[in-house]
Amino acid sequence: MPEPKQGGLAAVIAGQTRISTVGKEGKGLSYRGYSIYDLARFAAFEETAYLLLYGWLPDAVQLDQFRKQLAASRVLPPALTGILELLPGSTHPMDVLRTGYSALASFEPEEEGRSALDIAVRLIGCTSSILLYWYHYHHSGKRIDTEGSGGDTASHFLGLLHQREPEEQHAKALDVSLTLYAEHEFNASTFAARVTASTLSDYYSTITTGVGTLRGPLHGGANEAAMALIERYDNPDDAEAGILEALRQKQLIMGFGHRVYSVSDPRSDVIKEWALALSEQAGDRKLYEISERIEQVMRREKRLFPNLDFYSASAYFHLGIPTPLFTPVFVLSRLTGWSAHVMEQRAGNRIIRPSADYIGPEPQEWLPLDQR
Amino acid sequence: MPEPKQGGLAAVIAGQTRISTVGKEGKGLSYRGYSIYDLARFAAFEETAYLLLYGWLPDAVQLDQFRKQLAASRVLPPALTGILELLPGSTHPMDVLRTGYSALASFEPEEEGRSALDIAVRLIGCTSSILLYWYHYHHSGKRIDTEGSGGDTASHFLGLLHQREPEEQHAKALDVSLTLYAEHEFNASTFAARVTASTLSDYYSTITTGVGTLRGPLHGGANEAAMALIERYDNPDDAEAGILEALRQKQLIMGFGHRVYSVSDPRSDVIKEWALALSEQAGDRKLYEISERIEQVMRREKRLFPNLDFYSASAYFHLGIPTPLFTPVFVLSRLTGWSAHVMEQRAGNRIIRPSADYIGPEPQEWLPLDQR
Repeated sequence: MPEPKQGGLAAVIAGQTRISTVGKEGKGLSYRGYSIYDLARFAAFEETAYLLLYGWLPDAVQLDQFRKQLAASRVLPPALTGILELLPGSTHPMDVLRTGYSALASFEPEEEGRSALDIAVRLIGCTSSILLYWYHYHHSGKRIDTEGSGGDTASHFLGLLHQREPEEQHAKALDVSLTLYAEHEFNASTFAARVTASTLSDYYSTITTGVGTLRGPLHGGANEAAMALIERYDNPDDAEAGILEALRQKQLIMGFGHRVYSVSDPRSDVIKEWALALSEQAGDRKLYEISERIEQVMRREKRLFPNLDFYSASAYFHLGIPTPLFTPVFVLSRLTGWSAHVMEQRAGNRIIRPSADYIGPEPQEWLPLDQR
Repeated sequence: MPEPKQGGLAAVIAGQTRISTVGKEGKGLSYRGYSIYDLARFAAFEETAYLLLYGWLPDAVQLDQFRKQLAASRVLPPALTGILELLPGSTHPMDVLRTGYSALASFEPEEEGRSALDIAVRLIGCTSSILLYWYHYHHSGKRIDTEGSGGDTASHFLGLLHQREPEEQHAKALDVSLTLYAEHEFNASTFAARVTASTLSDYYSTITTGVGTLRGPLHGGANEAAMALIERYDNPDDAEAGILEALRQKQLIMGFGHRVYSVSDPRSDVIKEWALALSEQAGDRKLYEISERIEQVMRREKRLFPNLDFYSASAYFHLGIPTPLFTPVFVLSRLTGWSAHVMEQRAGNRIIRPSADYIGPEPQEWLPLDQR
């Protein structure tokens, strides 16, 4: 019986995958064999999503059809918008998605002949709709048209959020970010979704598991925590002093280091370039410069590198995305990876049921109530 | 790097626990050191729940207070009953619970100063309310009073379901069943809930993960599948012929065998006695006799023993519980085990993030769209 030393199943192989490599020697981060650098530079998010879901890059006809299916998935059942109206405006946006997906299962159950692929497309298509219908209803008092004015996933999101056509560079930046966040092997939310899938539960259950697991600050919540950190400072010198003080107090600085990567996170270089480009376009380099200084301090003091979450924070800020919606954007993207893993788990399923090391009390004699 | 041979993390130790032993040598099944046989015979479900949540058996004052807290947790927020009315009557009852818990997070979030224990008590108290409010609204056209007429968890469930005081023996049988289903170490739903907890996500997310994972037919759904099997036959001889034919066709017979137990499931003996007692009280031994014959055939042909799910099916039938509500009853009980594990995970947390063995494509050259 192998006994992992470090806990948290660190370095324990929990199964096989054909979907991605994370930090494997000579392979870096790749989806289905394609380098994350090529995908971020050349592929639209929809091509990446197709690659993850189907296993190959779409040709022009397949891609066109896939885009049309996604666009056709943006309208919500009326009872679901009713439920979103009943959720308070103070709801955590990740809870809105968790409840929204969970409720959608009632209206469009898998058991009625929908395939996992059908539902994956539906969920990618309607995630911005669920999130932003709820958001506008409670924050701007509007019942928005969730179909929007067309465009791809990134444009649809920004269009619904700002209620106007997004700038091209903004849509492109978000599109790249969606590709970067799409898939990352057996991370906690994906692994949890696979455990749910392993009991042969339905597809919606696997995704609500994914959302609930991603929500934590040690996982998807890290980009929001990074934003809260960066926003705290007025300039790079303040940031340096603040981080040094936080490190002295042994505080955890979010957005740095990674369970799997030991030297750098390949996604960070890509999003950092976009964070710079967006800040220059906005004519406001303040957050970028603060971020860079924090990066320098963390490298110098802790030999830690920024992960994808760190520069995503300032990039999303320049896209006008409110901080509480950062992790839901991560969901919009990671739905593709979760879906690929759920289908892979189902294809060669064995229930995921580990053992525990019991360190509790020895057998106890029964004690009747009046003798306690 | 340990490489599990069997897949599904079988026999891999994923962490430590003080909560229960499952099939450990000389220990059998125990919760916090107390034998499941003693608990099933002597303890009310509320004592078992308290034991799991707090770690010790309550004294009379503690137990009384705990019962009052549970009873005070039965009324639902009006907006939540509104949501339950918007979920169609065709919804899978496990989806009702998953959505109900997920939505309750919006009205009573953990972040507003509720402890995990507060929410655990709230959820145990209101599970029958969520399920049966939805059930009666859609199936008998009634908006029931979810407070019910008092009594403990089992009586409250049966009282809301049948809209009358339950018979004492029925309430007792369900109470024992709730104790038997309460906790079972690192089973798939509990383990999945711990993975969700390990990102420091909120308590409701861990429970929706548990529900979604329990829903699968390889896990909590097995008691419903066992009922479907037993109901198929008119008498023991038919059952024997049917099971032999199913085995010839290599069909999986639900309710037999177990990942961890190799000789017998100690819970099965207890629930089997209750299944017999309930069938005799009803003056109808048909389902019991069919069940016994299936047990004999499975022991003879496959050397497999019934697990807890198998005799639970006919016991629940005699309690008048509709088959689609079997797994939700499992939830009502297992909430206690999930909660204990989530608190334990948080107390010594490390994010649960295993690795994968990559068997996918080698690095691929990028292929522009027009060359695919």
